[in-house]
Amino acid sequence: MTRQEIFEQIRKKKSFLCVGLDSDINKIPRFLYDTSDPVFAFNKEIVDATHDLAVAYKPNLAFYESMGVSGWNTLEKTVNYIRYNYPDIFIIADAKRGDIGNTSHHYARAFFDALDFDAVTVAPYMGSDSVKPFLSYVGRWVILLALTSNQGANDFQFLKEDNTRLFEKVITTSQSWGDIENMMYVVGATRAEMLKDIRALAPDHFLLVPGVGAQGGSLAEVARYGMNDQCGLLVNSSRGIIFAGEGKDFAEKTRNAALQIQSEMAQLLAEKAII
Amino acid sequence: MTRQEIFEQIRKKKSFLCVGLDSDINKIPRFLYDTSDPVFAFNKEIVDATHDLAVAYKPNLAFYESMGVSGWNTLEKTVNYIRYNYPDIFIIADAKRGDIGNTSHHYARAFFDALDFDAVTVAPYMGSDSVKPFLSYVGRWVILLALTSNQGANDFQFLKEDNTRLFEKVITTSQSWGDIENMMYVVGATRAEMLKDIRALAPDHFLLVPGVGAQGGSLAEVARYGMNDQCGLLVNSSRGIIFAGEGKDFAEKTRNAALQIQSEMAQLLAEKAII
Repeated sequence: MTRQEIFEQIRKKKSFLCVGLDSDINKIPRFLYDTSDPVFAFNKEIVDATHDLAVAYKPNLAFYESMGVSGWNTLEKTVNYIRYNYPDIFIIADAKRGDIGNTSHHYARAFFDALDFDAVTVAPYMGSDSVKPFLSYVGRWVILLALTSNQGANDFQFLKEDNTRLFEKVITTSQSWGDIENMMYVVGATRAEMLKDIRALAPDHFLLVPGVGAQGGSLAEVARYGMNDQCGLLVNSSRGIIFAGEGKDFAEKTRNAALQIQSEMAQLLAEKAII
Repeated sequence: MTRQEIFEQIRKKKSFLCVGLDSDINKIPRFLYDTSDPVFAFNKEIVDATHDLAVAYKPNLAFYESMGVSGWNTLEKTVNYIRYNYPDIFIIADAKRGDIGNTSHHYARAFFDALDFDAVTVAPYMGSDSVKPFLSYVGRWVILLALTSNQGANDFQFLKEDNTRLFEKVITTSQSWGDIENMMYVVGATRAEMLKDIRALAPDHFLLVPGVGAQGGSLAEVARYGMNDQCGLLVNSSRGIIFAGEGKDFAEKTRNAALQIQSEMAQLLAEKAII
């Protein structure tokens, strides 16, 4: 999917919402346990209820891998379901992969050939040859970790040499590996004020912003510091949307939660004269 | 598995060899394609041919994930096969995972509950809460990336603040998260001379050392700078061992390749008076 196609979808839906499919089998409504694949049944309902409000879905691999072989099967079914029914939607494998070149090449095959994801999140620690194999797929994206939303981000990401912090070095160095058509960065919403510094280094890249909702980040702050004239943001919400309800009407509650965020997004896009 | 149990196995087998099961379906002997699960058939032969020479096996997740659902099934069968037939052997998921706490908790379940690995490799970029969930499993291990064997290691791992390089900060900071009984570090053999600096910071931790063989690292150099009085090393070889042969006798050639390394290891252990 191209950058332009993502932007067109944002304008059409008046939304830059990414719904995180952190579909923990222990948290989904109990009555779904009667189905043959409870997590897939859950994901299907969530996607059907939000597809016109979200521009991206982001299955979080850990929640599928923790179910073993059947979890990987559920993941594949989920990706295929979205792709077949809602082909305009951007699908992100939140996998945080990254290894030596020969191995990363196989991870790229896993997410772009064996599965039909548009993008994969990649950890930068191992450097260029751990990232480049993902960039050889035309129309597919790397979303590189820069500044994450969690407390542990403070441990290493702010290490500073010659006035450049590690997350800044990740952003500047990686711009010689890919470009604005195949690379995005992860920047946590819990550090919205840092988006200003990041936009100085990467004015045109899309940013994937987790941490709004359960983790405490503010959407207005994210838009204030991070939005560019093509929006340039995909803001993720997982738990706040997918676990909005517990009963038979969970999908309706999920839709309401997504609608609330989408409405706020529409207003922010209008304020920037993007829609 | 405890540190003492690993050490006992090293003494018994006169080996600190870890065999990397980077079992690329495109590189295994062609005649195995006639079996129902060619990669499992391959792994089974490799393990049977080397179990008395190796103290650890390290399936590399990318090579299984790139086969989709069936690959995850092959992985599970491989782990179970090793565990059932050779229960003393240490099994490492080379997965390079790491995410926010809630997610890492699910990755830990994936590798320690759904699958029966003893250890998982973890990327440090996201800091403490991305690593600690793995450490809550008694008898299981985190193997944290410190200094990797690839060219891309130069991009970020040497970033220096106050005379401390990133990989050094990873080693010192992480020592407050775990201890020598549940944490090891990845240090590439291609940087054997750096092992001296690393041993100054982590004298007692086990180090997992990839990069001997196809990647060009020297076993004697690794032992010279990295061995401690309980060996403290697991040296991995993947391609050099598992793809030593291509014909019907591939397992025999694999055994010969492993035997050659094990012989050298026995000598290095004897020189250090460990055996």
